[in-house]
Amino acid sequence: MEQKLQMLLDTVRKLIRRGAYPNLTKVVAKSHPADVAHLFRYLDLKEQRILFNLIEDPETAAYVLSELDHGTGAALLEQIDKETITEVLQEMPYDDAVDIIRNMPEELAEEVLQIMQDEDSEEIEELLKYGEDTAGGIMVTEYFAMDEDQTCGQAIQALQEAEDVEMVFYLYVTNEHNHLVGVLSLRQLLTVPASTKLKNIMTRDVISVRTDMDQEEVAHMVAKYNILAVPVVDEGNKLMGIITVDDVIDVLREEATEDIYKMAGSSDEELLYGFKSFKIARLRLPWLITNLFGGVITGYLMWRFKVTLKEVMALISFIPVITGMGGNVGGQSATIVVRGFATGRIDFSTLRQVFLKELRVGLIMGVVCGVTIGLVAYGWHHNPYLGIVVGLAMVTAMTVAATMGVLAPAFFKRFGVDPAIASTPFVQTANDITGILIYFGTATMFLNLLR
Amino acid sequence: MEQKLQMLLDTVRKLIRRGAYPNLTKVVAKSHPADVAHLFRYLDLKEQRILFNLIEDPETAAYVLSELDHGTGAALLEQIDKETITEVLQEMPYDDAVDIIRNMPEELAEEVLQIMQDEDSEEIEELLKYGEDTAGGIMVTEYFAMDEDQTCGQAIQALQEAEDVEMVFYLYVTNEHNHLVGVLSLRQLLTVPASTKLKNIMTRDVISVRTDMDQEEVAHMVAKYNILAVPVVDEGNKLMGIITVDDVIDVLREEATEDIYKMAGSSDEELLYGFKSFKIARLRLPWLITNLFGGVITGYLMWRFKVTLKEVMALISFIPVITGMGGNVGGQSATIVVRGFATGRIDFSTLRQVFLKELRVGLIMGVVCGVTIGLVAYGWHHNPYLGIVVGLAMVTAMTVAATMGVLAPAFFKRFGVDPAIASTPFVQTANDITGILIYFGTATMFLNLLR
Repeated sequence: MEQKLQMLLDTVRKLIRRGAYPNLTKVVAKSHPADVAHLFRYLDLKEQRILFNLIEDPETAAYVLSELDHGTGAALLEQIDKETITEVLQEMPYDDAVDIIRNMPEELAEEVLQIMQDEDSEEIEELLKYGEDTAGGIMVTEYFAMDEDQTCGQAIQALQEAEDVEMVFYLYVTNEHNHLVGVLSLRQLLTVPASTKLKNIMTRDVISVRTDMDQEEVAHMVAKYNILAVPVVDEGNKLMGIITVDDVIDVLREEATEDIYKMAGSSDEELLYGFKSFKIARLRLPWLITNLFGGVITGYLMWRFKVTLKEVMALISFIPVITGMGGNVGGQSATIVVRGFATGRIDFSTLRQVFLKELRVGLIMGVVCGVTIGLVAYGWHHNPYLGIVVGLAMVTAMTVAATMGVLAPAFFKRFGVDPAIASTPFVQTANDITGILIYFGTATMFLNLLR
Repeated sequence: MEQKLQMLLDTVRKLIRRGAYPNLTKVVAKSHPADVAHLFRYLDLKEQRILFNLIEDPETAAYVLSELDHGTGAALLEQIDKETITEVLQEMPYDDAVDIIRNMPEELAEEVLQIMQDEDSEEIEELLKYGEDTAGGIMVTEYFAMDEDQTCGQAIQALQEAEDVEMVFYLYVTNEHNHLVGVLSLRQLLTVPASTKLKNIMTRDVISVRTDMDQEEVAHMVAKYNILAVPVVDEGNKLMGIITVDDVIDVLREEATEDIYKMAGSSDEELLYGFKSFKIARLRLPWLITNLFGGVITGYLMWRFKVTLKEVMALISFIPVITGMGGNVGGQSATIVVRGFATGRIDFSTLRQVFLKELRVGLIMGVVCGVTIGLVAYGWHHNPYLGIVVGLAMVTAMTVAATMGVLAPAFFKRFGVDPAIASTPFVQTANDITGILIYFGTATMFLNLLR
């Protein structure tokens, strides 16, 4: 699989370099649209432009666009004529088309919408009203729905004639006000006499979501109930669209990536910036500057202990290990809590248990590491008291760090701040400070024994 | 949604506390199996045991088990009689049943398999042969397949009579050797005359996976091709089972969690251990001990510079900020590279570009942070040269850290070590060491100006 793609990529790159565009057109036409879409990830914008212009089939072009991030998609379309743009956009699921239009310069977007002035465009303008990250923003309006008073025979006939509904899994049933009242699987349609009314065999307990529900919540729901598509309704329970499981997969992956980036003090916006270093640096800097001032505070505390330090220079040997280990343990606990919140495994009702667990784990690991570093300190500087001071400081610092790692994300979450972004710099700075205070505090107390 | 669940949880807890088991049984019977399954996440093992024993419907019990991790599932089953165990397991998808049996004590597992000695058990024993994380391990054997020489009318009839195939999306077509030769959507069946042979309308270009393919690879493929189910074949292209998209969602979520845990130096095995502190501490310790010795090396280097330090005690104020910022920047780059490898966004062919980008980003951020800390140092200790030394050290340390953050994960990946687990301690230690060397190196060079 991977090898096949690598070969395709090498071929395409070679042909682009040589400017062998007719050959390239043939290679693209022969490949699976998903493979072509995949190639685009490995090309730079210039190569992407060349290759995109050689795609002759609007369907393949649409496939490529729906796999790329929407900013790149808009950039690739901007260069071609407006008629082709609309042709390609019409091949795309409405939700993806809408996201790309959102990313176009306003003027172009309006022109494109004007050309598309038919049913399609109406649907697209409708979708543009919803927030990008809501159920309304990711739903498609190509679903299969019928009135509850129609029969199974009529439904099968409608299904045979349907064109736009590529992926049919469920038949949604509505009443005369277009309100969602039931759902049927296609198989159910086939297992009853053709004259049966839909309302007599439909499942009335339909799981649905509101247009304004956050996309992450939708994703968790689809994952939880193991359904392939979820209907989207407005506040009056009117059926507006459906969200299919393949879009849910994208949401879940994006979400995980987002959390991972945030925990490192960046943002998944980075992915849109490609290789634009200044924009990326601007994204990452606020978090770094916060940490910078945290580091200055820690440094200030060390400076206050300079008398102790000057008397027992050996103390300096263990500063990095004490602050570093505190940061590591705190980071572990914080990671587990942040991910727990994200996946729903941890909430405020189980937080006390989690806190006590992390406290115990921190203590156990603290004792192991404290004894180790105590022995190292004794062996190195030949002073048993130094070993005791370093070891004790390590145990305390690690235990405190583990509890901080639970409390900080929980605190941020309680006050509506995203724990993924807020926890790490806070936990790190807090741990550095407590680590230094504990270490030098203990050392100053036992100063006579250390000299 | 959330509120409804919270209410259900509160009710269930209250009833458990009161021992009001008849009421509890009623509440459970009335709720959606997915909601009951969800509740189990918030209960401790004792409460889980009580509640599980009150579930009367084997189907609901099966649902609960397939949502819980398999270790807990096995623990809940162990306490009930073997006939009920088999009854519940027979309600489950084979792949989940197999995973639970894997987690039972060997003796019990054999007894259960003996009781199930019928067709079911054969299928389960078959599945037990595959690795837990392979396509074979997560596939189900309830698929809908027919011979290519049969007609669409026969297929529709078979579909009407089918019982075991709850979720049918595709009809797989096989030849006389049971080799997979094509695929059809249910809608396609309805749009042609009943006498049409399957082989005349089937799509011959079927995307399939081998039984031994890694589950993550399967998940990426299903996500990439936007398909709802992928057929699994053996080395001879014989159809063995299918993997549906809901299992793929689980794989993708597990995988993201696994990576996040690994980057923090733990393992998703933690999730199986619940609140068992000693086992969890043992999982996290190896990574911490590695970092511990990294910290000792850094400390040793600082100790070697003790003469410089003793002469200019002000230098101590900036140790935490220099090593800390190096660690942060390196962590950011490493996170982006590790996640990029995991999602396929980065590979060895684009690594050079990524390296150059991170180098530029590191340099830009280094200059910003270097100027800031330089001014702080000057304002604080009233020595312009100290400002220059600290600022220069910061720029260098951050730029080097950013490049290390790319090189370390790439290096580990090249040599087959999981970059998620190996990168962080290595990057952190390497950055601490280079940070200290750069800082004290510069300071020692300009010692005359600093005094």
